[in-house]
Amino acid sequence: MTTRPSGRAPDELRSLHFERQFTKHAAGSVLVSFGDTRVLCTASVEERVPPWLRGADQGWLTAEYGMLPGATHTRGAREAARGKQSGRTVEIQRLIGRSLRAVMDMHALAGRTVTIDCDVLQADGGTRTAAITGGYVALADAMDTLVQRGKLKSSPMHGQIAAVSVGIYDGTPVLDLDYAEDSQAETDMNVVMNEAGGFVEIQGTAEGHAFQREELDALLGHAEKGIGELLAAQRGARGE
Amino acid sequence: MTTRPSGRAPDELRSLHFERQFTKHAAGSVLVSFGDTRVLCTASVEERVPPWLRGADQGWLTAEYGMLPGATHTRGAREAARGKQSGRTVEIQRLIGRSLRAVMDMHALAGRTVTIDCDVLQADGGTRTAAITGGYVALADAMDTLVQRGKLKSSPMHGQIAAVSVGIYDGTPVLDLDYAEDSQAETDMNVVMNEAGGFVEIQGTAEGHAFQREELDALLGHAEKGIGELLAAQRGARGE
Amino acid sequence: MTTRPSGRAPDELRSLHFERQFTKHAAGSVLVSFGDTRVLCTASVEERVPPWLRGADQGWLTAEYGMLPGATHTRGAREAARGKQSGRTVEIQRLIGRSLRAVMDMHALAGRTVTIDCDVLQADGGTRTAAITGGYVALADAMDTLVQRGKLKSSPMHGQIAAVSVGIYDGTPVLDLDYAEDSQAETDMNVVMNEAGGFVEIQGTAEGHAFQREELDALLGHAEKGIGELLAAQRGARGE
Amino acid sequence: MTTRPSGRAPDELRSLHFERQFTKHAAGSVLVSFGDTRVLCTASVEERVPPWLRGADQGWLTAEYGMLPGATHTRGAREAARGKQSGRTVEIQRLIGRSLRAVMDMHALAGRTVTIDCDVLQADGGTRTAAITGGYVALADAMDTLVQRGKLKSSPMHGQIAAVSVGIYDGTPVLDLDYAEDSQAETDMNVVMNEAGGFVEIQGTAEGHAFQREELDALLGHAEKGIGELLAAQRGARGE
Amino acid sequence: MTTRPSGRAPDELRSLHFERQFTKHAAGSVLVSFGDTRVLCTASVEERVPPWLRGADQGWLTAEYGMLPGATHTRGAREAARGKQSGRTVEIQRLIGRSLRAVMDMHALAGRTVTIDCDVLQADGGTRTAAITGGYVALADAMDTLVQRGKLKSSPMHGQIAAVSVGIYDGTPVLDLDYAEDSQAETDMNVVMNEAGGFVEIQGTAEGHAFQREELDALLGHAEKGIGELLAAQRGARGE
Amino acid sequence: MTTRPSGRAPDELRSLHFERQFTKHAAGSVLVSFGDTRVLCTASVEERVPPWLRGADQGWLTAEYGMLPGATHTRGAREAARGKQSGRTVEIQRLIGRSLRAVMDMHALAGRTVTIDCDVLQADGGTRTAAITGGYVALADAMDTLVQRGKLKSSPMHGQIAAVSVGIYDGTPVLDLDYAEDSQAETDMNVVMNEAGGFVEIQGTAEGHAFQREELDALLGHAEKGIGELLAAQRGARGE
Repeated sequence: MTTRPSGRAPDELRSLHFERQFTKHAAGSVLVSFGDTRVLCTASVEERVPPWLRGADQGWLTAEYGMLPGATHTRGAREAARGKQSGRTVEIQRLIGRSLRAVMDMHALAGRTVTIDCDVLQADGGTRTAAITGGYVALADAMDTLVQRGKLKSSPMHGQIAAVSVGIYDGTPVLDLDYAEDSQAETDMNVVMNEAGGFVEIQGTAEGHAFQREELDALLGHAEKGIGELLAAQRGARGE
Repeated sequence: MTTRPSGRAPDELRSLHFERQFTKHAAGSVLVSFGDTRVLCTASVEERVPPWLRGADQGWLTAEYGMLPGATHTRGAREAARGKQSGRTVEIQRLIGRSLRAVMDMHALAGRTVTIDCDVLQADGGTRTAAITGGYVALADAMDTLVQRGKLKSSPMHGQIAAVSVGIYDGTPVLDLDYAEDSQAETDMNVVMNEAGGFVEIQGTAEGHAFQREELDALLGHAEKGIGELLAAQRGARGE
Repeated sequence: MTTRPSGRAPDELRSLHFERQFTKHAAGSVLVSFGDTRVLCTASVEERVPPWLRGADQGWLTAEYGMLPGATHTRGAREAARGKQSGRTVEIQRLIGRSLRAVMDMHALAGRTVTIDCDVLQADGGTRTAAITGGYVALADAMDTLVQRGKLKSSPMHGQIAAVSVGIYDGTPVLDLDYAEDSQAETDMNVVMNEAGGFVEIQGTAEGHAFQREELDALLGHAEKGIGELLAAQRGARGE
Repeated sequence: MTTRPSGRAPDELRSLHFERQFTKHAAGSVLVSFGDTRVLCTASVEERVPPWLRGADQGWLTAEYGMLPGATHTRGAREAARGKQSGRTVEIQRLIGRSLRAVMDMHALAGRTVTIDCDVLQADGGTRTAAITGGYVALADAMDTLVQRGKLKSSPMHGQIAAVSVGIYDGTPVLDLDYAEDSQAETDMNVVMNEAGGFVEIQGTAEGHAFQREELDALLGHAEKGIGELLAAQRGARGE
Repeated sequence: MTTRPSGRAPDELRSLHFERQFTKHAAGSVLVSFGDTRVLCTASVEERVPPWLRGADQGWLTAEYGMLPGATHTRGAREAARGKQSGRTVEIQRLIGRSLRAVMDMHALAGRTVTIDCDVLQADGGTRTAAITGGYVALADAMDTLVQRGKLKSSPMHGQIAAVSVGIYDGTPVLDLDYAEDSQAETDMNVVMNEAGGFVEIQGTAEGHAFQREELDALLGHAEKGIGELLAAQRGARGE
Repeated sequence: MTTRPSGRAPDELRSLHFERQFTKHAAGSVLVSFGDTRVLCTASVEERVPPWLRGADQGWLTAEYGMLPGATHTRGAREAARGKQSGRTVEIQRLIGRSLRAVMDMHALAGRTVTIDCDVLQADGGTRTAAITGGYVALADAMDTLVQRGKLKSSPMHGQIAAVSVGIYDGTPVLDLDYAEDSQAETDMNVVMNEAGGFVEIQGTAEGHAFQREELDALLGHAEKGIGELLAAQRGARGE
């Protein structure tokens, strides 16, 4: 049987931590840790909507993602200095936005835009799933803030959401890959699910050999278990 | 039971056509049609590798995707004039590139770069899956051209690949969505598979309600059937 | 006497073809062929005007030009990926726009913008003159479409226009240069004329030795002949 | 008969002035005036060639054009601040470069790049023709400087070149249009010729009605006369 | 004791010249010379304010700076062609704008934007201080023009401003460094002051060894003397 | 006498904290806090030099600065998404780089580039001075790391450096302005000094009324006191 570099069991998450109110200006601010991966997620609310929604009876939610240059083993280029976000960044922030919009009632948010900023302070694999999972907490906190300030009668959120990666490492399906595993994995899949067990996003890529249907089934089983634990941890962190 | 706008059965592909050697300069050139979706796929070979592969004993394959401004119901902005590819474009061309690299032996391609250009002349849903499926034919033709010209002893391709979309339309899992279905679908999934029944990519998104595991299973079943037919059609078009 | 690579007489056009309604979404869509040069011209109509014409009692017509990367002998860079249109592209699309505006009554088009997109699928010399000549047909078809849909009482076009290249190849003035000639020509001139024999644009460049007044006269004679044939072919294709 | 706003005869140039050595750093530096149009032309020489000429036995000449924001009646945007040169700028600088390359022996310039910078300090029509005419003087001065410094044995220039605009103003063909004429002209043509009476560039555009062959002939006659005078003035300014 | 390359005394300015109305379109236009440094400063007035001031009861003043490519010893890249202003340019134009805003009553300018364009025709050190000093004269001239045209009852300027560089060259504090000194200086400081002896900006940088408080005091003394002379010269040039 | 919003004495710094090794990948990583201003400073070392230093016997140090979108009271635009760094960002990162280069022996760093990334997690005034002060600690830590890894025999740093802001708030010169003060200050000055009491940078701007020489003297006195405390705190944090 495979030994994971971290010594974890195949279906074991990394240690998980949510530090709420990590910064003070944004309506929601959470530093989420999936092991050594640390992502600062802030949820900012603005009293306006994008041009293409003017006059429509709904609000909007969008996400932006960034990796601090010093967050990785070898320094990455600063995208602001290069004048362009990479294809990877664009793909990830689109995924985060779609995932969080899935639990938001846009009509109840009418006239407002929520922006979820996910900035990776330290990367060790799984930054996009940490961003979605932490971003949910920042978003829920921000909506509570609006309710407390009397700007909304109730939270416009109608569901809970979390994300995790699964993959095939050294022939074995494993949960929540860290960088040592991710860089060697034959298959990598990111799964986003809600609290009712429904799938919101599945993105799987065979890096090496194509994966078979039974491998896919095993991976989805790991993801369901892991997301159950992540959803519970989100509720715990939020005191629910 | 649902009636599809086109009158097709739930697991029925659109009419499929490959027009090989559609243009004369590129080593491979195929106009692929999935119903009214028409994509021009060319495979160009250059005798150089990207800077980050210099000195490495391998070649490279990359893909670029574009939508002609007049290809859609309402004219789209020209990305070259805007000075920027959209996030959607970037995502799609990364998917095409990863998918086709999965069947290519990069070492056998040493010193060369193949670029697959997929330009949508007319859009009616499923442009990315048509691009992968047609791109495979253009690529295989280009490799045959290199062999015929004596530049390669044998084709560096070690597999066959095709892609199709599946989704839940009006409550029913359906195969190969056209625009009328795609714009209404609750769930949309793109599946890329090889000739051995292995999955190379799965990208599923719940647009409306999250999908359940049994819906996912039904969608994967449709995809497996559809891809089988696409792979056969590719072989037929190539005279294999 | 010079033999042209194609065996054509000095004042002989390449075989000419207009395939109308090549795509279905744009109001006008024509695939024009000047020999092996093939350009897809679409005319799209939008019910708005550019910001600088708001409040003015007129419409607008603009053109955009692109070369598919695989259209040439050696693959060209995709301008959308480079983030910038080349100087050559900008020059050509400005020429196409000016030329077609010359036969359009902008007041009769009030409140609308027509965009002519000219995308080169295969290049073999003379792409800009093919684009103007085919663009005219797409534009005229689009205006007829607006009339048929009851959006305009009559076509706002008040003239017919076509374009051709002439040049000095191997010492002889020739009409409608293909790539083999164009790449060797000492002088290259693009001429745009209307159905009344008036000049709309002349752009001549001496690549090698400067041309004398009598050479210019010979070139203009060829252009007048060629454009007469192109105008007749446009009318034939349009069933006039 | 038409009266020109300036009171000039139809075939009369504006007052012409070349101020050589206007600045001290560039190898050639000329402030040229065509009436109130004033363009600073500098010719800078660098001991390197563009990447695509490395290893080739020739040098290169390129031109860049700019309009100072305060040079026009209403302030124009600064292209460096907008982050982009306009289509008009690109077109003009390509014309200047092609024109001056026509009188330069690139092999005799091997290993060097000459850049002609043409910056318009004050605009009153005809800036591109002033730039070519003044740019020639700056270029010839720079080549003489290289000879004096012992870097070249003799000047690599094999011809003389000048440019002028002609057009139809209020029904009459006129020479060297100023802004008051240019903004009203029905036809505008820029002509570049060498000292042997050969045409290097002709760019004519009908702004209003298309021009007839006899009008074209009259315009070319004016251009030939005007360029003769410009060539003489260049020689006078250079003390030849 | 140090001998300056120019032979000037340590507290001696270069010869100073203001050529007003150097160009005719802008409301104010001054060619300022600090020795061989020559900067064309124009002040253009537009009857609009930036978007972020709409509805506010004030006008705005902004500055832009550019260096002509041929202005320096070795040709500099054209920022418009590179598609980006350098960090140095941005820094300088922000400094010029802040400095001139310090003497302008923005409320009296309501509804208008003044743009000061400072373009360096020839560089020999101190271009930013020449730009501020000359920009003041162009601005004051432009405000007088508005008063003369009846657009303003009185000038909205409430002070006078000038700038100079000081630095430590070869161990000695000196005033108004030219390029020969600037490129060797251990410390370089730009000082902007008003007619009441108040400091508007101080920007000092130690290029080599850090400067001591007494050196700073000596530099400020030189600056106060030099600016007194510059303010007097501005008044002289303006006939005050 | 003025009461500062925070209740601090005029010459009192905010509470100061350095959290070293805040992240694990960069050679030096410090989270510095000046009160509620928190900046993550990382120092990354790469074994290469910029193109313009190739062949020269020295290394290089550069700095980049960014503000996370959620760091401020109202969300700021993400510069990577806008495709451009603001003028303010460029100015700040140039200042950080110049300041830290002042204490580095570039020859001892030959063949290497150090990049100091300063990313503001939370902003409350004085982010640039916190960045320089924290950046010094990250840099010194990174150089120690290189020595420990045997890549350098001794640290190439020859000095210590810190920065602080001073300004005139409500008529009183104060030290280390927070946002409440900074947004109201009449004058704002950033001072960078070394451990020997030498000035490395002074950047003072009068926002409202120009400051007099005696005010400048008072500000410099505060800065000297504050920097003395900052230098001591840096040594304390580093265990020196």
